[in-house]
Amino acid sequence: MNFAIVRFIIGWVLEFEAAFLLLPALVGVIYGESNISVGFLITAAVCLLLGFLLKRKKPARKDVYTREGFATVALSWMVMSAFGALPFFFSREIPNYIDALFESVSGFTTTGASILTNVEAMSHASLFWRSFTHWIGGMGVFVFIMAVLPLVGGGTTINLMRAESTGPAVGKLVPRVRDTAKILYEIYIGLTVVGTIVFCACGLNLFEALTTIFGTVGTGGFGIYNDSVMSFSPLVQNMITLFMILSGINYTAYFCLLSRRLKDAFQIEEVRWYLGIILGSVAIISWNIHKIYPTLGETVRHAFFQVGSIMTSTGFSSTDFDTWPELSRTILLLLMFIGACAGSTGGGIKVARFIILMKAIRKELAMMIHPRMVKKIKLDGHPLAHETLRAVNVFISVYFVLFFASVLAISLDDFGFTTNFSAVLATLNNIGPGLDLVGPTQNFSIFNYFSKCVLIFDMLAGRLELFPMLILLMPSCWKKY
Amino acid sequence: MNFAIVRFIIGWVLEFEAAFLLLPALVGVIYGESNISVGFLITAAVCLLLGFLLKRKKPARKDVYTREGFATVALSWMVMSAFGALPFFFSREIPNYIDALFESVSGFTTTGASILTNVEAMSHASLFWRSFTHWIGGMGVFVFIMAVLPLVGGGTTINLMRAESTGPAVGKLVPRVRDTAKILYEIYIGLTVVGTIVFCACGLNLFEALTTIFGTVGTGGFGIYNDSVMSFSPLVQNMITLFMILSGINYTAYFCLLSRRLKDAFQIEEVRWYLGIILGSVAIISWNIHKIYPTLGETVRHAFFQVGSIMTSTGFSSTDFDTWPELSRTILLLLMFIGACAGSTGGGIKVARFIILMKAIRKELAMMIHPRMVKKIKLDGHPLAHETLRAVNVFISVYFVLFFASVLAISLDDFGFTTNFSAVLATLNNIGPGLDLVGPTQNFSIFNYFSKCVLIFDMLAGRLELFPMLILLMPSCWKKY
Repeated sequence: MNFAIVRFIIGWVLEFEAAFLLLPALVGVIYGESNISVGFLITAAVCLLLGFLLKRKKPARKDVYTREGFATVALSWMVMSAFGALPFFFSREIPNYIDALFESVSGFTTTGASILTNVEAMSHASLFWRSFTHWIGGMGVFVFIMAVLPLVGGGTTINLMRAESTGPAVGKLVPRVRDTAKILYEIYIGLTVVGTIVFCACGLNLFEALTTIFGTVGTGGFGIYNDSVMSFSPLVQNMITLFMILSGINYTAYFCLLSRRLKDAFQIEEVRWYLGIILGSVAIISWNIHKIYPTLGETVRHAFFQVGSIMTSTGFSSTDFDTWPELSRTILLLLMFIGACAGSTGGGIKVARFIILMKAIRKELAMMIHPRMVKKIKLDGHPLAHETLRAVNVFISVYFVLFFASVLAISLDDFGFTTNFSAVLATLNNIGPGLDLVGPTQNFSIFNYFSKCVLIFDMLAGRLELFPMLILLMPSCWKKY
Repeated sequence: MNFAIVRFIIGWVLEFEAAFLLLPALVGVIYGESNISVGFLITAAVCLLLGFLLKRKKPARKDVYTREGFATVALSWMVMSAFGALPFFFSREIPNYIDALFESVSGFTTTGASILTNVEAMSHASLFWRSFTHWIGGMGVFVFIMAVLPLVGGGTTINLMRAESTGPAVGKLVPRVRDTAKILYEIYIGLTVVGTIVFCACGLNLFEALTTIFGTVGTGGFGIYNDSVMSFSPLVQNMITLFMILSGINYTAYFCLLSRRLKDAFQIEEVRWYLGIILGSVAIISWNIHKIYPTLGETVRHAFFQVGSIMTSTGFSSTDFDTWPELSRTILLLLMFIGACAGSTGGGIKVARFIILMKAIRKELAMMIHPRMVKKIKLDGHPLAHETLRAVNVFISVYFVLFFASVLAISLDDFGFTTNFSAVLATLNNIGPGLDLVGPTQNFSIFNYFSKCVLIFDMLAGRLELFPMLILLMPSCWKKY
């Protein structure tokens, strides 16, 4: 590995984190929490200094190959989370560093799983930072850096984007990587601004609106109240549902819309499946839970909210879905696996991978019946590259191996199977709440530190789609050349 | 599809089933249960007659291609189970036909999951039939027929064996299919005879010894007592453990031993992994449960028994492992997924597939670090065919899709997630007992008929390794040509 370039890029990430940390410090000042702001400022200063030191010597070779891209992104996210946890620790709002790290990783990876038992006791600055990490992590810090400045590596920086963006085949919207990054953030900021205005118009104050929209467009799910968003008005909840579902859509669709290619936008197979699965799940769940709520409107609202929240891997809750009948709970569990669209801010295995898998299964069965048939798997009308199919297959294998290894590791804590299974599911897919002891009205504080570390790894692995984190475990990755 | 050959071969299967049914009828006569024997004889007569009718007209074209092989095997197993259920129904020992079918499918597929709440109330004839179906299904009815008579289709009958035998790449031990079938049954019968003698020597009577060895070498798990084999002496339990583990080994290893190629037998990667996983699991579980049992001997005996029973997909229980700590329960759940060796009578995904997956994952990660590396995945020193790797990948995808679809389907019954998850796991992998409400001291009678039908499908799909059952769902499979 070319360590010089890895070091150099991590330096840049720290500089950017220092800048990000100024925002919650400012929020603290506004709300008269200067003692809290100090922690943010100290962390910012440390990041700035360390970033400066790491960046001082420019790397001789500037190419970012796959290994450097993957390793850099994985290490950066770990470093970013490690420093992002410091303000919680400094303010003693989360007195244990592992807990603070869990919260920080959960924020950046847009998981939204919390170890806090009383969110409302937190300062405004810390609440803002928790939600803001969702926003940074949602579209990705590298995509942001690339959009803002011309990073070393030129065209090869696409490997950083590949490691950070979601989906089986990360591509460019336009020929230049930097322009692609810019377009993605323009759409992202657009959604954020419109969402903030809508939420304010629906009655939230600016602080509530900002933190909620960060959690929504980043598909994170940290709330600022103990009951998540249950106490918000039905109108606000419906608006959150809308923006969650919009945020789970493949951003290519928005790019097509912006380029006035309406037909293309509506013909993306993945988006159609995504919306179809949402509608189908809402229909079944509404039928299944209609006896729990007094009116059809309330039933459908909660069904839509939870399906949108879980499928996009956001994790807000409008009601305690852990008390729903088993059919609805199981549908939500399966939606956790499926996840949002590729190229969105959402987590999970991604709808695109499922479509590819289903087509591959169909093709295999057809080939047993007609062995001499020649058939190519197509997606959106284009034949699928052999590489992509192989990557999807390996992804699924790695996913389930990691999944069950994690369930085994945390079973040492001796909680029930539903708790362990859904805890891993909720972290590896960056959802947030699970079922049973980690259900929507519970939290992750029950686990011991070993289990928390396993789940921290799962959150990072899930957000970066497994390989960047796993490559760090290969000894040959650490060989200098 | 060439329907004529499918019809013709199903006819043969029914003739053989008629012959098999005479054995329990004889047992009934010996134990003075002539009224029960009548049901077996009537069923045998019906099978004989129907088989004769189906076989009357010889098919014009005799080739058995993949589609005919898969469809024939799947349909035969369904027909065989349907008729095998009749004696339970005729004797009113299982008054509902769906329940009787569940028990019959559970027998033939060597699952060992039961809907009976009181096994000891059954007649000797029926108990014998339950266990004997394990023995027939263990190595497979087609392998038996092929060993006994030269079936139409000549060399293409390998496709029947492919559909019925287990593992990612079913091959022949010797050039001729028929000789391969003969060798497999010779080993199988050898294990059965030795096991019966050993069990008798350890103090079981002949009826106990026979039914237990059928369930053991077939890796089935139906017991003749309500407490499975908990009340058998420690010595008998240890012998059962030994024969269960022997039955989960790839039969190629025995063939090597018989051909005096000792070195080859011990160098089969799959067998080494299989034994390694067993030893590792026993070690961890023994440590985890040592406080539950008074002596180390008892601890290790139960750990060995349950690990052997679950990993080979037999499903006997020497103790209620559902009361073990979560770590041990989770290990057993994971062993259910892994299953026994390919080419054994055991179920599950199979150790060989896991080895291939692990190697594929390793290769993929290495290729991210060294993109220009040329590396072939090898198994037992031979490079793995691309087809086999693809088949394993598709198998895993289909497996998990079917798995979670089944969990969703039976969640309508509104039992807990652990129950539903482990019920599907226990049936799809042909284990028998699961956890919670389907734990070792419980049974499957709690489910409604819809769920039972889903689990019946899963048992058949699991035993035939998915594709033969799934191909029946493809409309193009049913086109005449």
